[in-house]
Amino acid sequence: MRILTLLLLWVPLAAAADPLASWDDGQAKQAITGFVAAVTQAGSPDFVPESERIAVFDNDGTLWVEQPIYIQLAFVLERIGELADEHPEWREEQPFKAALARDGVALGEAGMEGLMQLLMATHAGVSSSEFAALTADWIATARHPRFERHYTELVYQPMLELLDYLRDNGFKTFIVSGGGIAFLRPWAERVYGIPPEQVVGSQIALEYEVIDGVPTLVRKPEIAFIDDKAGKPVGIWRHIGRRPILAFGNSDGDYQMLEWTTAGEGKRLGLLLHHDDAEREYAYDRDSHIGRLDKGLDDAADKGWALVSIQRDWRRVFPWSPTADASP
Amino acid sequence: MRILTLLLLWVPLAAAADPLASWDDGQAKQAITGFVAAVTQAGSPDFVPESERIAVFDNDGTLWVEQPIYIQLAFVLERIGELADEHPEWREEQPFKAALARDGVALGEAGMEGLMQLLMATHAGVSSSEFAALTADWIATARHPRFERHYTELVYQPMLELLDYLRDNGFKTFIVSGGGIAFLRPWAERVYGIPPEQVVGSQIALEYEVIDGVPTLVRKPEIAFIDDKAGKPVGIWRHIGRRPILAFGNSDGDYQMLEWTTAGEGKRLGLLLHHDDAEREYAYDRDSHIGRLDKGLDDAADKGWALVSIQRDWRRVFPWSPTADASP
Repeated sequence: MRILTLLLLWVPLAAAADPLASWDDGQAKQAITGFVAAVTQAGSPDFVPESERIAVFDNDGTLWVEQPIYIQLAFVLERIGELADEHPEWREEQPFKAALARDGVALGEAGMEGLMQLLMATHAGVSSSEFAALTADWIATARHPRFERHYTELVYQPMLELLDYLRDNGFKTFIVSGGGIAFLRPWAERVYGIPPEQVVGSQIALEYEVIDGVPTLVRKPEIAFIDDKAGKPVGIWRHIGRRPILAFGNSDGDYQMLEWTTAGEGKRLGLLLHHDDAEREYAYDRDSHIGRLDKGLDDAADKGWALVSIQRDWRRVFPWSPTADASP
Repeated sequence: MRILTLLLLWVPLAAAADPLASWDDGQAKQAITGFVAAVTQAGSPDFVPESERIAVFDNDGTLWVEQPIYIQLAFVLERIGELADEHPEWREEQPFKAALARDGVALGEAGMEGLMQLLMATHAGVSSSEFAALTADWIATARHPRFERHYTELVYQPMLELLDYLRDNGFKTFIVSGGGIAFLRPWAERVYGIPPEQVVGSQIALEYEVIDGVPTLVRKPEIAFIDDKAGKPVGIWRHIGRRPILAFGNSDGDYQMLEWTTAGEGKRLGLLLHHDDAEREYAYDRDSHIGRLDKGLDDAADKGWALVSIQRDWRRVFPWSPTADASP
């Protein structure tokens, strides 16, 4: 009986032995575990008190898939389709016509200005709670064109393990996304274990109005803050008010976040995910329109940032995909 | 020996028996303890899970003294004095001349525009870390003209107890201040137990720049966000992304924060501190230039907000002041 009990205890203990089980035992994993050991060991010269163990993560391409288009853009395009009946003029007007036809060339030609028009048409003019419900509904049903899974199943298993591992070591984990804060918050806690107050992102203007006696936050068609590139350190400072000690990104949009994080005093860790596995996920870097990683690749070694290769460093990519020995 | 052990255990237990010891056992205290009991009791129809137990507090006049002038304005005026040597032109130029002379009438005439000029001259043009150091240094030395204490000693003992009591009951406590976020953060954790990432406040513009190779967040002379009145629900939504279940303020600047908080579904608590004790602190409401409470007094009963009277509800005002039976 006692032996059986011991055996039963042994199974979960053995399974819990490696909190980063989906990571190959290579340099990237060692950089992470070495860093965490150094900053959490009392008496170590690199020790950091819990309150200052702030870790920030980009979202698109770092925590979940960003190809073939940003997931939030898929939401925008589907929402344009849903709203088209109320806007018959969209059938002839760009960029709406291109969005309805999923005409990538015409959308590309519409550029940033066109994208903003689509964003405002789909993200503003409703209350914050209505928008949260729209987002939650969409994310619960929409599926990725290649993987045919819900988008929230296209989060990276090694990153989920890393978030848990850091929190188990007294870190507070934050998302710092170029994407919209209101698009992420309704599901980030369920999927990543990151509560709304730890999500930093781009924002449109809000206005407080009492409408028919109901206090309401109305979303206005105006950009209030873009949390990308040099905006990321600004967004972090606004929301968190501390410089992180760990930053994890995957594109040049995360360059300044890593630069500012790792320039702080004491031990810091900057990580860049390199999408180099077309078979299990996607392969793209310097020439990609989405998630371009160019300057980051050039400077990573000089800056002391760890490059994480999906191909070599991740034994499993998604929670539902098979575990494999990493490629040689 | 066992009896001695029991006695030793008894002392701290007895001392800890009332976490709101500085509150008189009146209606305000009952409103608070009744609310907390209802939302924390598993199985209660009013139960709220820990993650949604968000409590927001105004700072000036709610957590610490705001008379005879906002403490941040005292910082501005002293800083103008320090910077005057570098700006000989200020001796002749308004509103700087008035600030240097502490000429209240001329300052009043300079109005909001003048105040903004003083704010920008003292709050911008330095890096975020330099400003944090300036604030921390000032708060460690400056003293209140009437009480002759450091400003961080002029926090209200009953509010410190309330913050602790809420946190002990699974609440996350936030400051939502009309004052500057960067002025509060350097000391809010030490004084209130509220970490920087749980401080919401007014903000000036920030810009990320690499200066002589050093990544820096530079404070720009431009208002980015005013966290007051209708701005408070907006600031809360931006930072926290949830509607609080408890809001505590003291002036009409907190009206919309209380209105939005208490309009949410389920059990909510709105509280307004009424400064009615000239002897132990200050007495002011409808006619005050600072912390005016007028519409809030009119509507509190209708809205179901609890009025907290310093005179009647607080047995002690400051951590260092004597405990007294509340006035009859």
